[in-house]
Amino acid sequence: MKLWDKGLPTDQKIDRFTVGNDRQLDMVIARYDVQATLVHAKMLYKINLLSDQEISEIEKELNILGREIEKGTFVIEDQFEDIHSKIEYELTQRIGDAGKRIHTARSRNDQVLVAMHLYMKEELLQIKSLVNELSQNLLTHAETYKDVLLPGYTHMQIAMPSSFGLWFSAYAESFIDDLYFVNAALKVVDQNPLGSAAGYGSSFPIDREFTTRELGFETLKYNVVAAQMSRGKSEKSTAFAMSSVAATLSKLAMDVCLYMSQNFDFMSIPSEFTTGSSIMPHKKNPDVFELIRGKCNKIQALPYELNLLINNLPSGYHRDLQLLKEGVVPAIQDLKASLEMTMYALKNIQVNKNILDDDKYDYLFSVDTLNELVMQGMSFRDAYVKIGLDIEKGCYTPEKNTKHSHSGSINNLCLNKIKKKLEEV
Amino acid sequence: MKLWDKGLPTDQKIDRFTVGNDRQLDMVIARYDVQATLVHAKMLYKINLLSDQEISEIEKELNILGREIEKGTFVIEDQFEDIHSKIEYELTQRIGDAGKRIHTARSRNDQVLVAMHLYMKEELLQIKSLVNELSQNLLTHAETYKDVLLPGYTHMQIAMPSSFGLWFSAYAESFIDDLYFVNAALKVVDQNPLGSAAGYGSSFPIDREFTTRELGFETLKYNVVAAQMSRGKSEKSTAFAMSSVAATLSKLAMDVCLYMSQNFDFMSIPSEFTTGSSIMPHKKNPDVFELIRGKCNKIQALPYELNLLINNLPSGYHRDLQLLKEGVVPAIQDLKASLEMTMYALKNIQVNKNILDDDKYDYLFSVDTLNELVMQGMSFRDAYVKIGLDIEKGCYTPEKNTKHSHSGSINNLCLNKIKKKLEEV
Amino acid sequence: MKLWDKGLPTDQKIDRFTVGNDRQLDMVIARYDVQATLVHAKMLYKINLLSDQEISEIEKELNILGREIEKGTFVIEDQFEDIHSKIEYELTQRIGDAGKRIHTARSRNDQVLVAMHLYMKEELLQIKSLVNELSQNLLTHAETYKDVLLPGYTHMQIAMPSSFGLWFSAYAESFIDDLYFVNAALKVVDQNPLGSAAGYGSSFPIDREFTTRELGFETLKYNVVAAQMSRGKSEKSTAFAMSSVAATLSKLAMDVCLYMSQNFDFMSIPSEFTTGSSIMPHKKNPDVFELIRGKCNKIQALPYELNLLINNLPSGYHRDLQLLKEGVVPAIQDLKASLEMTMYALKNIQVNKNILDDDKYDYLFSVDTLNELVMQGMSFRDAYVKIGLDIEKGCYTPEKNTKHSHSGSINNLCLNKIKKKLEEV
Amino acid sequence: MKLWDKGLPTDQKIDRFTVGNDRQLDMVIARYDVQATLVHAKMLYKINLLSDQEISEIEKELNILGREIEKGTFVIEDQFEDIHSKIEYELTQRIGDAGKRIHTARSRNDQVLVAMHLYMKEELLQIKSLVNELSQNLLTHAETYKDVLLPGYTHMQIAMPSSFGLWFSAYAESFIDDLYFVNAALKVVDQNPLGSAAGYGSSFPIDREFTTRELGFETLKYNVVAAQMSRGKSEKSTAFAMSSVAATLSKLAMDVCLYMSQNFDFMSIPSEFTTGSSIMPHKKNPDVFELIRGKCNKIQALPYELNLLINNLPSGYHRDLQLLKEGVVPAIQDLKASLEMTMYALKNIQVNKNILDDDKYDYLFSVDTLNELVMQGMSFRDAYVKIGLDIEKGCYTPEKNTKHSHSGSINNLCLNKIKKKLEEV
Repeated sequence: MKLWDKGLPTDQKIDRFTVGNDRQLDMVIARYDVQATLVHAKMLYKINLLSDQEISEIEKELNILGREIEKGTFVIEDQFEDIHSKIEYELTQRIGDAGKRIHTARSRNDQVLVAMHLYMKEELLQIKSLVNELSQNLLTHAETYKDVLLPGYTHMQIAMPSSFGLWFSAYAESFIDDLYFVNAALKVVDQNPLGSAAGYGSSFPIDREFTTRELGFETLKYNVVAAQMSRGKSEKSTAFAMSSVAATLSKLAMDVCLYMSQNFDFMSIPSEFTTGSSIMPHKKNPDVFELIRGKCNKIQALPYELNLLINNLPSGYHRDLQLLKEGVVPAIQDLKASLEMTMYALKNIQVNKNILDDDKYDYLFSVDTLNELVMQGMSFRDAYVKIGLDIEKGCYTPEKNTKHSHSGSINNLCLNKIKKKLEEV
Repeated sequence: MKLWDKGLPTDQKIDRFTVGNDRQLDMVIARYDVQATLVHAKMLYKINLLSDQEISEIEKELNILGREIEKGTFVIEDQFEDIHSKIEYELTQRIGDAGKRIHTARSRNDQVLVAMHLYMKEELLQIKSLVNELSQNLLTHAETYKDVLLPGYTHMQIAMPSSFGLWFSAYAESFIDDLYFVNAALKVVDQNPLGSAAGYGSSFPIDREFTTRELGFETLKYNVVAAQMSRGKSEKSTAFAMSSVAATLSKLAMDVCLYMSQNFDFMSIPSEFTTGSSIMPHKKNPDVFELIRGKCNKIQALPYELNLLINNLPSGYHRDLQLLKEGVVPAIQDLKASLEMTMYALKNIQVNKNILDDDKYDYLFSVDTLNELVMQGMSFRDAYVKIGLDIEKGCYTPEKNTKHSHSGSINNLCLNKIKKKLEEV
Repeated sequence: MKLWDKGLPTDQKIDRFTVGNDRQLDMVIARYDVQATLVHAKMLYKINLLSDQEISEIEKELNILGREIEKGTFVIEDQFEDIHSKIEYELTQRIGDAGKRIHTARSRNDQVLVAMHLYMKEELLQIKSLVNELSQNLLTHAETYKDVLLPGYTHMQIAMPSSFGLWFSAYAESFIDDLYFVNAALKVVDQNPLGSAAGYGSSFPIDREFTTRELGFETLKYNVVAAQMSRGKSEKSTAFAMSSVAATLSKLAMDVCLYMSQNFDFMSIPSEFTTGSSIMPHKKNPDVFELIRGKCNKIQALPYELNLLINNLPSGYHRDLQLLKEGVVPAIQDLKASLEMTMYALKNIQVNKNILDDDKYDYLFSVDTLNELVMQGMSFRDAYVKIGLDIEKGCYTPEKNTKHSHSGSINNLCLNKIKKKLEEV
Repeated sequence: MKLWDKGLPTDQKIDRFTVGNDRQLDMVIARYDVQATLVHAKMLYKINLLSDQEISEIEKELNILGREIEKGTFVIEDQFEDIHSKIEYELTQRIGDAGKRIHTARSRNDQVLVAMHLYMKEELLQIKSLVNELSQNLLTHAETYKDVLLPGYTHMQIAMPSSFGLWFSAYAESFIDDLYFVNAALKVVDQNPLGSAAGYGSSFPIDREFTTRELGFETLKYNVVAAQMSRGKSEKSTAFAMSSVAATLSKLAMDVCLYMSQNFDFMSIPSEFTTGSSIMPHKKNPDVFELIRGKCNKIQALPYELNLLINNLPSGYHRDLQLLKEGVVPAIQDLKASLEMTMYALKNIQVNKNILDDDKYDYLFSVDTLNELVMQGMSFRDAYVKIGLDIEKGCYTPEKNTKHSHSGSINNLCLNKIKKKLEEV
């Protein structure tokens, strides 16, 4: 059964090609389609296009369908091309004519649009909450390990003293920037597109302010053509936000993988978090962090995939848009899993407290020594030349006692200020 | 002269390879480096690392340099690898030791960071203002042409009635979504990174709150490692924002190019805005809009270029970051030019007022007719079948008088509400 | 059961995170793993690391497993993390110690590498064959419709006469270029990586020339580090080749979608190949071609996804590589389906034979008229000015009889020469 | 002066917008435009569209222009929009009417196409030659350092013994795969597009086989629509080839940067090849390799930029295509510089010969020990468990004498076979 069925024979092969993975992907938006269908029905009732009895039957059956979806007993069988035709079919089967009337003043495009907006809003809120929680954890770790020094690198060369306090809280503050993008994406999806029908509105006197309120959207996407254009655009906005979070998480994972290498040996995770090798019995590999890095790098390709799908298409709906979901849904799931897994693994991380005992890190302190000379009145350039010569001649001795007092430095991490920023996002 | 010169011979070929296009690109950040250098000097004076006389000399000479930059007489000669070494050299030449002291408590990395933040902030504000102005123009056009109907397409097939009012204002409302991303990017760059030195802070008692205030930043990027990580990240954030604006503008340009084709003939621009063919004398090509589309599509590749540059690099500065500017600077210039050119060309656009006189557009109204039946009580599905059969039999006659009354539809564009949204962004 | 299991408890959540979609994706490489395992066993037998009885038991059981895979009765249960552990388990269950010995002198990484090479080789050959078949079809169509004229566009403006003969065969000749890339990818994957173990070879005296021959590879990837590096690189090579084919196919689909618009009306496909609208009864949408376009655009994002996964990873295996399959496998399936569907739909395409009767196409012939003047001795620039003025004054009359005789032009399509090129690829 | 000038006023701002960077970029294709113009003129003479005197004047003046280009005295002034109008103008100025006739039977699009094909062919050949030379150098280094052992990593964990012989020659064999793509791109560009005019051919009896031969192309791009479609496609093919080479080079650079870190200390380059820090006097940074990595990563974004420019454009020329050059030309220059710089720097590389003396590398040999047990008859899985327990108990002692004899392993590098493969590409 397809919505557009006019009794003409349709080729099976084409059918399979056009339906694609929709039945499977649509399961994640099933509850949102039920929710939006119910609100749409209430609005039709409000403008007298559904009777008292019809709305009451529809409401009852949609609630039943909603519970089936929650329980996981709801299935989209092969004769339905998507969730939308399945739900309309179920309603019509169960309550007859009232079910047929539900499609009044809307289009399937409309249904997908509103369900995807609701879905992405919910998921972005969850991602925001996970990023926030992870950042809080990182701040806690920063406080705990604020006195453990770490070599800081530039050009992957040993450069200046850093600390686990700095390292952990750097990622916390960096995630705040990503949350600005999550907020931007939320603004984009938190607008009600319902009522745009096939992208040009309709002649029904529908009440879009009512559906906006009932669905909990912040505002209405007024212009119906703009509402239709948000298909693809809202997915890309969500992808930009996810890509931003993923980039920070991937970098954190890269650091962990590097720091767990025996050549650094800065940190370790308990053996139940590592995996082994099929031939090397001594290996304890940081697979979890490699997969976090990999999944987060893959997510960063999503905006480009969506770009290619929608680029240079003139305004108006095109069937290509159906393929947007294929990229967005697994990326959301991967990002949430990666955030959770990071929190889970970081909880159990062990840091090496004696890293700087190794002689090779002595030069870390050369700049501090140089700065001492400057504080005593030598010009920066002259001090720079002097220390350079001392090092060349091998007569440089470090003073391994950092006295970095300015805001955001090793001995003044400003964790509360970062926390405040995080809470304000 | 290079900042790291320790008297060792350096190979010329390497020199050319490593300097790249920096001298040329750095001209756009010259004024920001002067500005940040001055504020840095004032702060050094405040914490007693510069004397009264030194700060006064530095201030005077930086103001002179600033004016040379404004006038366009400032040049980065071949012996300097970038703007930063040039400015330090000039100061040292002109005022001696005080010039040497200016590099106290900062690093070149630091200088690039703060100058890029100031530069991107300024440019994002300009882009925001241009997008806002263009959107206002589009709303004005929508009001002017609100009664001129246009065919609406789905699947590039003639679908339902639309209008120039809808079309123009759709892009205005769509740009609002892009401005959320411009705002997010502004939040990212509007944080002071100065003081992070080589990415790990320093032992100088610098006052970062002072420089934050003096440079007009909204807040401080506290953590110095996070400040360093914003290199690349702030560029990518700016690129996401630009990519978002560019996508909308490119779509608008695609519509215009299509609508100017003789097969649509929906609009035209005066001949001074078109270009000809080297062999086809009758051609009047919409090159301006093709180049807007092309430039805006190219801009959309920028986030991926930046992604590839910084992806999988562990934390800490890497020289790769120098290449970020090469993509960002021309993209900013292209986007601003494309926005200006669009406004310029739209001002002179002529719309065809009799498009729907052509018979092939009659079916546009079939849904309105169908909806009439529904309003009279027929179920949607039954009405759908009836009109389908009428069309098959050739006995369908359109009523070309749209009565779309709901919010955001042809006869109720809600331009004031869109305007309000735009003003609130 | 996992290959690295040393009796330590492993967290279930991590397990799910690390296994990902491997069980499902691995089904497509199951047969190649069986094939490579068998050849590996034969080689171990050849160098006396397996006994007569062992090799005969292994061969028998692998053949049984191979048949189960062909029949579709083979399943990877949840206790196995991938196809490789499943097969080793099955062998050990069925034949005891001999099964345990099969992993001698190889690594799982090795197994994935060789199975993926075999898989991609097979699929690239299929893609090559499909592209070839489609191109042959296009040449046949070009011959059939060589006399049907079509407007040629530049800047989407009506420009010069073209024809269906030109249009169909242009895509045939264009696909030839893509096949050069398919051939390049084939060269990359047609090299035996087996024996590289974990990426550094082993101390076993294995015979890699033997496995190369037995597996039908053209040559050996000698260097074991290079063999390991081909993980990711061979996938990206395959992706480049697919991206190249997909770009051409997507462009063809874009043309069809545009040409099926009522504003062009150049071609149509029977109604069983179109889909309808849920609210517009008159619509016959070219969904099949829109989905071909969309799927092919999505495929073009694959190289970028793979790039991001492997970029900036130092040499040596990383777990991130596991995620390569997730993108490659569905892309291969989508590309093959798109190629098949294009052939299927083109077979039934109907071209409009009277396109040029429409007056708006008269100017198509202005250049031919201009050229007549040139052939009669006028300079090109003077003739260009004269025709331009005639058109401005409205006194231009076209001669709709093309006489394009040069190679590759309307009246001299060189189809045999294109066919020859195609056969030589 | 513009080719399409019909006396109408054209707005200056538009002019600047549309011309863009063409004057600068066109300098690299100037010599190819002269070459193709000359061959085109000879063909016109052959088919009697130019007289004896005209061809002789044209030939003389084009030779003069060619020499001016070689000497660097040729300039495209601001009144010309590109190289093509400049050259036609010069000819007309110098020889009058004959210059006007040169544009007979071709279009500017045609000129750009053929010049770009000639340019990319020449550059791809140079790139191929550089990659070949670099690979030969790598094989020489492999031979020189074949006995110096190196730890091999998986998951960035110390895994198994490797060697500089393996490491150097792995990149040589890996570059061979990239050359297959360079060859594919060469096949794409080594086809003569000249004669396609505006993309639909012309009514002139031109001899395209003649121009193919004279320009040294391997074959003709017969179909004129296909020839036009190669604009964008040939650039993307070149970009794929460059991206492939760049990926390998970037990985090599990443390894070098990592191995030069004090935490690895596997290799070093003389101080004239490093750069310093503006504040850390002890730093010797591998900037050259970081910039090679960065530039090569940037090049890998080029195919996506070109993709976005041409994606979803229907067939036929669009002005967007002008922007292709902006990405391609600098990428070619960057790739060649990166290849040269790599050879230059590798010549001076010093490898650390005592890396494995460090205890932390002892476990590298555990697999070899395990394999010994297997060779003595123990099953692989049992040996695996035994060595694992030995390591846990701290009673494992390595035998640091690799005996890897199979093809492509440490003690049997097969350098001659790799060299043979390289020569056959």
